[in-house]
Amino acid sequence: MSLSEFDIIERYFSRRAAARADVVLGIGDDAALLQVPADRQLAVAMDTLVAGRHFPPQTAAFDIGWKALAVNLSDLAAMGASPAWATLSLTLPEADDAWLAGFADGFFELAERYRVELVGGDTTRGPLAVTVQVHGLVEPGRALRRSGARAGQQLFVTGTPGDAACALQALQSGDTVAPALLQRLNRPEPRVDFGMALAGTGGAAAIDISDGLLADLGHILDAGQCGATLWIDRLPRSSGLASVQDEAALGCQLYGGDDYELCFSLDPGRAGQLEVLARQQQLAVTRIGVIESQPGIRCRRDDGSLYTPQGAGFDHFRVP
Amino acid sequence: MSLSEFDIIERYFSRRAAARADVVLGIGDDAALLQVPADRQLAVAMDTLVAGRHFPPQTAAFDIGWKALAVNLSDLAAMGASPAWATLSLTLPEADDAWLAGFADGFFELAERYRVELVGGDTTRGPLAVTVQVHGLVEPGRALRRSGARAGQQLFVTGTPGDAACALQALQSGDTVAPALLQRLNRPEPRVDFGMALAGTGGAAAIDISDGLLADLGHILDAGQCGATLWIDRLPRSSGLASVQDEAALGCQLYGGDDYELCFSLDPGRAGQLEVLARQQQLAVTRIGVIESQPGIRCRRDDGSLYTPQGAGFDHFRVP
Repeated sequence: MSLSEFDIIERYFSRRAAARADVVLGIGDDAALLQVPADRQLAVAMDTLVAGRHFPPQTAAFDIGWKALAVNLSDLAAMGASPAWATLSLTLPEADDAWLAGFADGFFELAERYRVELVGGDTTRGPLAVTVQVHGLVEPGRALRRSGARAGQQLFVTGTPGDAACALQALQSGDTVAPALLQRLNRPEPRVDFGMALAGTGGAAAIDISDGLLADLGHILDAGQCGATLWIDRLPRSSGLASVQDEAALGCQLYGGDDYELCFSLDPGRAGQLEVLARQQQLAVTRIGVIESQPGIRCRRDDGSLYTPQGAGFDHFRVP
Repeated sequence: MSLSEFDIIERYFSRRAAARADVVLGIGDDAALLQVPADRQLAVAMDTLVAGRHFPPQTAAFDIGWKALAVNLSDLAAMGASPAWATLSLTLPEADDAWLAGFADGFFELAERYRVELVGGDTTRGPLAVTVQVHGLVEPGRALRRSGARAGQQLFVTGTPGDAACALQALQSGDTVAPALLQRLNRPEPRVDFGMALAGTGGAAAIDISDGLLADLGHILDAGQCGATLWIDRLPRSSGLASVQDEAALGCQLYGGDDYELCFSLDPGRAGQLEVLARQQQLAVTRIGVIESQPGIRCRRDDGSLYTPQGAGFDHFRVP
């Protein structure tokens, strides 16, 4: 261990990924100074990844760097906010050059794509963990919230939930994992552009699926004091997941965490706009149910029969 | 472990410590929404405390909660920014009710004092660690930076640096620790009001002493491309430190981290204003040296002799 804390910052984390003019003072002082436009609200979200809990210990450093930012950008996506700045707290058992280089490459590849500037943070020694806070900008009154769901709205999901959980289960069982599924686990694509466009299209309630579709849909329903029917045969299934036994695949789709897709509700009159938007962004968006006034989630098969979900969403303090 | 992540947030972290009108949307959505006034810049700082590294394992939960916020508020103090909001990532080996209640009490006692609202964060399971990000507000052009030091300015420090390191050394040696010193280690008082007033008084360069006086003064001098003479016999010594053998006390004063006092430079013409300010705030502020154009730090005794410092400031990756 020959690197000091200052060496680490200097060598790996001083890239000006976006060279944003709204960064008045970046890394290197007691605090960063940032200029929020007068006509924007600031959206902030913070997520921590702990080794062995949020990613398998063998995960590549690049993927950890990517994912630590991606899961946070996903929160901004779920608000419809435009990403601006990030801070990073990195706790490392040791300062390993190759690991740090890989981590920084993964982090900054995603940061550059969304013009996110790293403006500060902390580097400490300890068990491997990464905390990122992202800062986004959104017009007053335009942010997507969890609380906008109303009976009669349609329920949608982006992408193909369940892939990440399927990949993780296979990894944990020592099975071969299809590269496409592994990609979904290790390099989630935050739906930033879609979230921003959805906020502009009058999206109602939105959440990102980090804890599992049923669990996160439950948060929307709780916030809106309503319920939903979910058509489980219509849940979009990736080709990777299609090769998995049906009941297991359904389990991943309903309970699997770590997908970072968006689940949202929308007034039926806006379905046309949504279709245009999805086509423009080349993103699969699937109608999976309907919001109802009766509380609770009713999972239905296409033949009309009720399906009773088993299990629960991911909870860091309930899952052993 | 019967508490879920949601129970923990609901039970311990939903206090609206400050009921600030600028919190558009607080805890409970994918991101918080905040309103930064048009005539203010946003100052952000993030610090992580890892158990066994930044605080002894036996530290009371109240003190950990207090300190996690205090070390961050100290960064805002060093910028002269007014605290506004905080986010908190708490990584816990288990969800223990008594521990959580104590931690939250410590965190919110300080939050209420400075009208800081907790607006979001994350709760995960893993080795005990706490990351806090604070958000402050400062008038454009008024923030204190590290880079303002110029030859001829006088050098000052608040409070009595060295106390925290002295307490830590005693704890680690199994010695009895004077309560006043222990208080300085476990419940540091961020110099928030003083930092804000100093920014208004035309303070030049400022930094908070978290890594030790010599190390942090070094950052000011590097940023200003200048040097300093430090009068080591004039370093303020608390009554707790006065009972320690002289050379050991001096070591704590020069190299000891965790003090969260402010070290700053000021044009000599502003000494009168500073005196008034210190008296108003009932805070000890001591002139300890002078900024010079010649790089490096020259430690001098009152008899004019040079003192050669041994050792280095605290570095998380260099200190074993």
